[in-house]
Amino acid sequence: LPPEAATTLHPADLAALLDLRQPEAAWETLAALPLARRAETFGYLSATTQVAVAAVAPRRALAELVSAMDADERADLWARLPEEAREALAPALAAAEREDIRKLASYPPGTAGAVMTSDYAVLRPEMTARDAIEALRRQAASKETIHVAYVLSTGRRLLGTVTLEDLVLSPPDRPVSQIMHADAPAVRAEEPAEQAARIVARYDLPAVPVLNGGDAMVGIVTADDAMDVAEAEATTDFHKAGGSASLGVALREATIGLLYRKRIVWLVVLVFANVFSGAGIAAFEEVIAANVALVFFLPLLIDSGGNAGSQAATLMVRALATGEARLADWGRMLGRETLVAALLGLTMAGAVSLLGLVRGGPEIALVVAATMVCVVLVGSLVGLSLPFLLSRFGLDPATASAPLITTIADASGVLIYFAIASALLMG
Amino acid sequence: LPPEAATTLHPADLAALLDLRQPEAAWETLAALPLARRAETFGYLSATTQVAVAAVAPRRALAELVSAMDADERADLWARLPEEAREALAPALAAAEREDIRKLASYPPGTAGAVMTSDYAVLRPEMTARDAIEALRRQAASKETIHVAYVLSTGRRLLGTVTLEDLVLSPPDRPVSQIMHADAPAVRAEEPAEQAARIVARYDLPAVPVLNGGDAMVGIVTADDAMDVAEAEATTDFHKAGGSASLGVALREATIGLLYRKRIVWLVVLVFANVFSGAGIAAFEEVIAANVALVFFLPLLIDSGGNAGSQAATLMVRALATGEARLADWGRMLGRETLVAALLGLTMAGAVSLLGLVRGGPEIALVVAATMVCVVLVGSLVGLSLPFLLSRFGLDPATASAPLITTIADASGVLIYFAIASALLMG
Ligand SMILES: [Mg+2]
Ligand SMILES: [Mg+2]
Ligand SMILES: [Mg+2]
Ligand SMILES: [Mg+2]
Ligand SMILES: [Mg+2]
Ligand SMILES: [Mg+2]
Ligand SMILES: [Mg+2]
Ligand SMILES: [Mg+2]
Ligand SMILES: [Mg+2]
Ligand SMILES: [Mg+2]
Ligand SMILES: [Mg+2]
Ligand SMILES: [Mg+2]
Ligand SMILES: [Mg+2]
Repeated sequence: LPPEAATTLHPADLAALLDLRQPEAAWETLAALPLARRAETFGYLSATTQVAVAAVAPRRALAELVSAMDADERADLWARLPEEAREALAPALAAAEREDIRKLASYPPGTAGAVMTSDYAVLRPEMTARDAIEALRRQAASKETIHVAYVLSTGRRLLGTVTLEDLVLSPPDRPVSQIMHADAPAVRAEEPAEQAARIVARYDLPAVPVLNGGDAMVGIVTADDAMDVAEAEATTDFHKAGGSASLGVALREATIGLLYRKRIVWLVVLVFANVFSGAGIAAFEEVIAANVALVFFLPLLIDSGGNAGSQAATLMVRALATGEARLADWGRMLGRETLVAALLGLTMAGAVSLLGLVRGGPEIALVVAATMVCVVLVGSLVGLSLPFLLSRFGLDPATASAPLITTIADASGVLIYFAIASALLMG
Repeated sequence: LPPEAATTLHPADLAALLDLRQPEAAWETLAALPLARRAETFGYLSATTQVAVAAVAPRRALAELVSAMDADERADLWARLPEEAREALAPALAAAEREDIRKLASYPPGTAGAVMTSDYAVLRPEMTARDAIEALRRQAASKETIHVAYVLSTGRRLLGTVTLEDLVLSPPDRPVSQIMHADAPAVRAEEPAEQAARIVARYDLPAVPVLNGGDAMVGIVTADDAMDVAEAEATTDFHKAGGSASLGVALREATIGLLYRKRIVWLVVLVFANVFSGAGIAAFEEVIAANVALVFFLPLLIDSGGNAGSQAATLMVRALATGEARLADWGRMLGRETLVAALLGLTMAGAVSLLGLVRGGPEIALVVAATMVCVVLVGSLVGLSLPFLLSRFGLDPATASAPLITTIADASGVLIYFAIASALLMG
């Protein structure tokens, strides 16, 4: 590490360098930084590095670091520390910090509560703008941001939000109650973290307030953390749609064992699902033996159904994830997809029937063209409907992966192909 | 529309309701709102609705609305308006506004310049904190935000960034030059918009400054727009990975013709690519005729290669998109993938050889098991490498779609299968 890097780099960049070093060396660099910079840099380290560095840092120094961290990042670290490390650390923390960590770490992973921070600025409605700015000055040191503050009544009930900008631009004597934005969008602690991210994006907020079941405010999810949630969600859905379980960690950090476990289940399930295609083929051995040319078109036809289905599923999965499509849209979408798929199928039938004519004569060409239209229609409608069905039964629509759609399309494609072939060729 | 909705709803929610109405009705509601709220609500309308409403609004009223819009949203609207509408509107706008629109609309779509806004707050380094707050108060009305301000020297060279929070917390007499953060991360106007989004996310910024080729500051990309860019990029990659071209508009707004065009090209390309699989099969008609049981395992084996390949491609495409993997990592990743794929292939071979034993006897079981290991290895290595290769040649790695990987895996799978079968069964 170049010696000036520790003092000049952005904490995010310094952390990326420290992620590549041994925990002892990383700690040595961190220990030499001023406390605020040390805590911020530590917060940017990967989960793995954080735990490794915590294991080599002296207990007192670690407690000092943990106290200086952002409340949300501190609670996340706590959740990842081994039991012994927590027990060693707890007595060195202030009681209020322990209680804050306990509360934040109590929300299940994936909820808004699990990503929120408790370090938000609070104002009372009767304060004047001048008093409010003074109050924020006093609170600033212990808060993640005073750019936005939350106006609370007794019982921590949220009355409205106010930005520092609003306060600076108001006449100094105006009460906060007349400056704040009432009806601020909020989220429940037990709702999915993605819901918090969606609200931040929809309303262009610097942070979204989080309420508990009793309507008391318990935290905020800041825009930077909302971006991370949205990115992690997109990654998870992307992996699922490609037929892999969500890794849960960065690809770089995934071990061979983890990659194997996340991928093997789907692959073996699909192997057995594919037996249906094989069984379909076996049932038609007679037609096949009499027209071996049919086998030439088999991969092409069944893949086309799967390809059209993958497209339809992909469009729907993403539309459901971004909230652009809802369960209620199924009927309308299905109608439109039928039309699009029919057009696609006819075009592809045109392309392939020429090939059928050359390779197998007019009869084969007819079978191939008719099959193409049918498999593209069936594949597309399955591809469109499966995400809706999964969603309807509370499952993640992203599970409607390309490999799954392909396998379903293959099995139905084989049946359609040889059924049409039997009807037209063996009649 | 319930009458109170127009005054009480969040502009984003009001816009979502207006998106569903006729342009005339939407304009009637908008026209009754105070100008600031009207402009903000209009900014949240979909691109299609904006253009439709602009077409029915009286020219003077439209000019007033356009002047009140955020600079970035105004330039986007301008780019979408038909030529006649622009010509009718231009004379009604102030010269400075026309020039601002011309500049912002001149950056190619997809660049940081195309998503930036020119409404950012500016400070001079020699101002005191007190003066700076006063300057921001005066600028506020015409700026999108004064939460963050940019300290410029002559020639609009960026010296540093300072937040309103920094200023409020500083001693009133301290000069801005001693408060600002120097070495602020910035982006070039001609860089991809996603680069701006990545910087905002990496450094947890409220906005990233945009510089032109001469190092002068020309705009900022705010965090809310960075989130939209990241979401649009994830959607595009998701669609591509599922074998559809990027729609460019929301799925809901896509017409049947658009959906057809975005999907047909890939499907027809894949039909012809699939001819290789067919040709492979045709070359082995002899083995197949002698062992029709082989056809039973055909879909299963070739699909398994494609499935493992889709997984590998999916993991890589997303890692390249999020910047988690780089071109230089190919070698290391390839080594790890070979090991994982070998383990996956062996497991799947175990699962399927039992089936081979039952359906075709020990010789078929051996052929099927050996083929499985090979196709999973080949599929995985192709799936991992294709995104790197595409990226290496300046193409979008997301083009390594599941359907493409499947088709490549099918063609190579057919060859592997029947080559192994010929060697072991016809020897
Ligand atoms: Mg932080
Ligand atoms: Mg947490
Ligand atoms: Mg937004
Ligand atoms: Mg945070
Ligand atoms: Mg964070
Ligand atoms: Mg999901
Ligand atoms: Mg297939
Ligand atoms: Mg706006
Ligand atoms: Mg623009
Ligand atoms: Mg971040
Ligand atoms: Mg904007
Ligand atoms: Mg926006
Ligand atoms: Mg991309």
